[in-house]
Order: sequence, then C-alpha cells, then structure tokens
Amino acid sequence: MPEERIAPVDVTRVTQGSVTRNEDVLAVEEPLEIRVAWEDREKNISVTMRTPGDDFDLAAGFLFTEGLIRTAGDIESVRHWGSPNVVRVALHNPIDTSKLDRHFYTTSSCGVCGKTSIDAVRVVSGAAPALAVPIATEIVHRLPKILEQNQSAFRATGGLHGAAIVSTGGELLRIREDIGRHNAVDKVIGSLFLDGATPLTNSILVVSSRSSFELVQKAVVAGISVLAAVGAPSTLAVDLAREFGVTLLGFVRDGRFNIYSGEVA
Amino acid sequence: MPEERIAPVDVTRVTQGSVTRNEDVLAVEEPLEIRVAWEDREKNISVTMRTPGDDFDLAAGFLFTEGLIRTAGDIESVRHWGSPNVVRVALHNPIDTSKLDRHFYTTSSCGVCGKTSIDAVRVVSGAAPALAVPIATEIVHRLPKILEQNQSAFRATGGLHGAAIVSTGGELLRIREDIGRHNAVDKVIGSLFLDGATPLTNSILVVSSRSSFELVQKAVVAGISVLAAVGAPSTLAVDLAREFGVTLLGFVRDGRFNIYSGEVA
Repeated sequence: MPEERIAPVDVTRVTQGSVTRNEDVLAVEEPLEIRVAWEDREKNISVTMRTPGDDFDLAAGFLFTEGLIRTAGDIESVRHWGSPNVVRVALHNPIDTSKLDRHFYTTSSCGVCGKTSIDAVRVVSGAAPALAVPIATEIVHRLPKILEQNQSAFRATGGLHGAAIVSTGGELLRIREDIGRHNAVDKVIGSLFLDGATPLTNSILVVSSRSSFELVQKAVVAGISVLAAVGAPSTLAVDLAREFGVTLLGFVRDGRFNIYSGEVA
Repeated sequence: MPEERIAPVDVTRVTQGSVTRNEDVLAVEEPLEIRVAWEDREKNISVTMRTPGDDFDLAAGFLFTEGLIRTAGDIESVRHWGSPNVVRVALHNPIDTSKLDRHFYTTSSCGVCGKTSIDAVRVVSGAAPALAVPIATEIVHRLPKILEQNQSAFRATGGLHGAAIVSTGGELLRIREDIGRHNAVDKVIGSLFLDGATPLTNSILVVSSRSSFELVQKAVVAGISVLAAVGAPSTLAVDLAREFGVTLLGFVRDGRFNIYSGEVA
C-alpha cells in the first residue's frame, strides 16, 4: 500500500473509562486538478478532493465516464504537471467541454491558481479562528443518540446523512437530512441562518458521516467551534480544524470518541 | 416526516435461505439548481443532487457557507422557480460569484436547461442499454468479502471508500480506494480503461458505499451490467438502472442482498 494514501496523526482516545494519547492513521485528502490539452488549447475541467495515488486512473476514468473520451487511444499522454496535485491529460483530438460547463457544480474545494486549499478557505470565508468553547465528555457521549433519535428518514431508508446543531449543553437546536452529507450540513446551517441565529458560536455540529475539509470549512464560516462526526476525519479536515481552532471529534459512537483537535473537559 | 424525502420501490430480498418480493423505502434523490438574482442579473451557481425538502435552507446554507452572503438580511426572497428542482434566491445587493467560477467542479448531475437528469445521461454518454449478464446468487454473497479483503487502506483508517471490478465468475480484476466514492469508481474504471479493457461487459462494479444516480451513470458509460453496493441505493439510481438494464443490488452484506433492478440466477 503506497504511504501517500494514509498518514499518521496524534489523537486523544476517550472511552467511558479512560483517556489515552497515541497515534491514529487517517485517509489523506488533497485537491486534484484535472486539465486537458489538445493542439494549442489547455483547459482546467475539474477540481476534486481526492486521496492521492492512482491519479492517472482517476483522470482517465473521470474523462471516460463523463463521456469526453471513448478509448485509451484518445490519450496522447497523462502526467503530473508542476504539482503532485495537478494532472494534465494531452489528447490527440479536440473534445467538447461545453457540456461540462453547462452542468457545472460549484464547490469551495480548491487547489487551482497555485493556492493551497487551506489558503483558499481564508479567501472564501474571511473567517476568524473559532472561539474556544468548553465542551463536556458527558455531552459528547450523548450526541450519537440525539442524532439517531431525531433522524426519522434515515431509520426508514438507511440511506440518508444527518446533520444536527446541538448546544454545548446538549440541547438539539435543529436537525436536517439529505442524501449528500454536504447538503445535510448546508440545510441545517441554512435553516438557522434564515432565522438570524448565525454565527452559531456556542454550538456543536454533529454529522452522521465522516468529516472532510469541506465540512470543517462550513463549520468555520458558520462560527461553529465543535465538529463531532460519527465517522473518521480526513487529514485535511484535521489540518484545517487545528489551524482555525475548531474542536474536531471523530468516531463518536458506542461510548467512545477520538479528539483530533482542541480539548474536551 | 414529509413524504417527499422517501419513496417506496419494489424489491426482491435474498437471504441465504429465502427469496421474497416486497416493498422497500428509499431516500429520494433529485437535482437542485440554485440561482441567484440581483438588480437585472440572474446566475445559475450550483447544481447538486439532493433529497427534496428544506430546499430554501439548502440554498441559503450553501450561499452562506460558501461566503457569498453574510446575514439573512442579504436575502430579499427565496422561492421555487418554475420547477420544484430550481430555487431562486433574490438578493438586495450584488455578490461576487467569480470566486465560485474559479473553483468550479464539474459533474454530470443535471437538471439545468429544463432537462430531466435521466435525459441528461443519454446526452452525456450516448450509452446503449446494458447487456443482460447472468449472475449467480452465490457470487453476489462473496462480493463483500472480496472487497473487504483487498481494501487495505480502509482497514487502516476506516475512512476510505472502495470500488472493485469483479468478473461475473467472482474473480477480482481491479480495486481502488479513495476518500470520495465517485473518485474510487473513476479510479477503478479508469485503470481498466487505460489498459484498453473497456467496455467492461462481463463484470460487476462493487462499491463499499451507497449507490447514487452518478454511480449508475458511470457504470452505464463503462458498459458494466451489474452494480452491487454495500449500502442503499437512491430512488434515482433505481430509475436509471431500470431504464438502462443495469442489475442493481443493494445492502450486499451479512449473507443477504436486495435486488432493485434486473435478475440474479
């Protein structure tokens, strides 16, 4: 297994009986920009947050499954281009990228323009570091049950992500569900935003999913100081949380959790 | 719970001892286009695959967490616009959408231009219906173990999606991992594409995640006839699989699975 796909990170493991410091291994998350080139044209067609490794497979598979190329023979060369996070695919013939432009989907994932993705969040948000908000171990242990008891559609389908805003005292303020985890977070934050309740300074964002760079970014912009996820964080989620002073908790379930950034009292 | 978030679908449930026909309830997946407008300008800034419901929260939360608006007072009105899958946010003041354009991320999710998303896949792929490929129950039961035994980084981190191409005889042809489930699928298909092995007619795409519209679409373009997912499918995944003759299996784990489209011998 190539080392680049996983990376060690210091973690504090909390169970109902113990607190230990040690090392955890996380999935690496980095932006990848895919560029295509033919004749004298060059075009950036995608930026995606991915785990490094097999980047040429990813670029070729993306172009193929989006219907832009049909056979391996359409490709002249595939290589990294000035950065391990940029892949350039040179093609023998022009392709029609207009159908991609029509269907574009915006995201704050960056890596373009030579910026690192962590710099990009500052540009997007102009956000200040989070205020350190004390949170109690006992409250953290209650979060998965709060999410589960209020996530009605998930129970019916097993197919929806939940996102909740919970006060640091453990009171459920709002919950939303969606098939996409970013959407569930946008919905729950957006709902309180429309009520004029942002910034959400004394609250916890609880998600049923893993936590990524983009979820930490959304928390930062909303002024949320604690992100608690049922699943694992990515490396970039941890980096960003540490940079902005967000308390980042992972594997919050079954009476245990891991602290990747910040402190729990 | 609003009805629109979930929908019933006919399903065949297979366990090691029985086969029963009944009804399952799935999470609804539909495209949402978010438009912003101010003065005489109007701009489509995002298309995302989402579960209907709380659409105004989603649109407001997206604009807020992307740093485009700061308070609820920036919004003049939010409403559906000619379709339940389009939300238009009218703003009091101009916003700078150029930062979104710079970071655009392409996807085949549609809903724009008045097309339905299922029509859009035909445009993108020009794909023919899948060839019906016989697949045996016994092989399906073996798929989760094939994925698990070969997904090395997931075991280390608990945070990576796996995607494998397995022959209809049960032989692992290729496996890839990524923090994003679309990326894992692009990588595994792209790897075989670069080898000149597409279309992947006699093979099964096995994913550790749920299955969505986009994953079925990628399978269709690659000529794959069977998609087997450890998690649940969305409604739109089922619709598209039925339309293109893809055998769609969900909850493939613990000695059982559900057939949402196609047949298993």
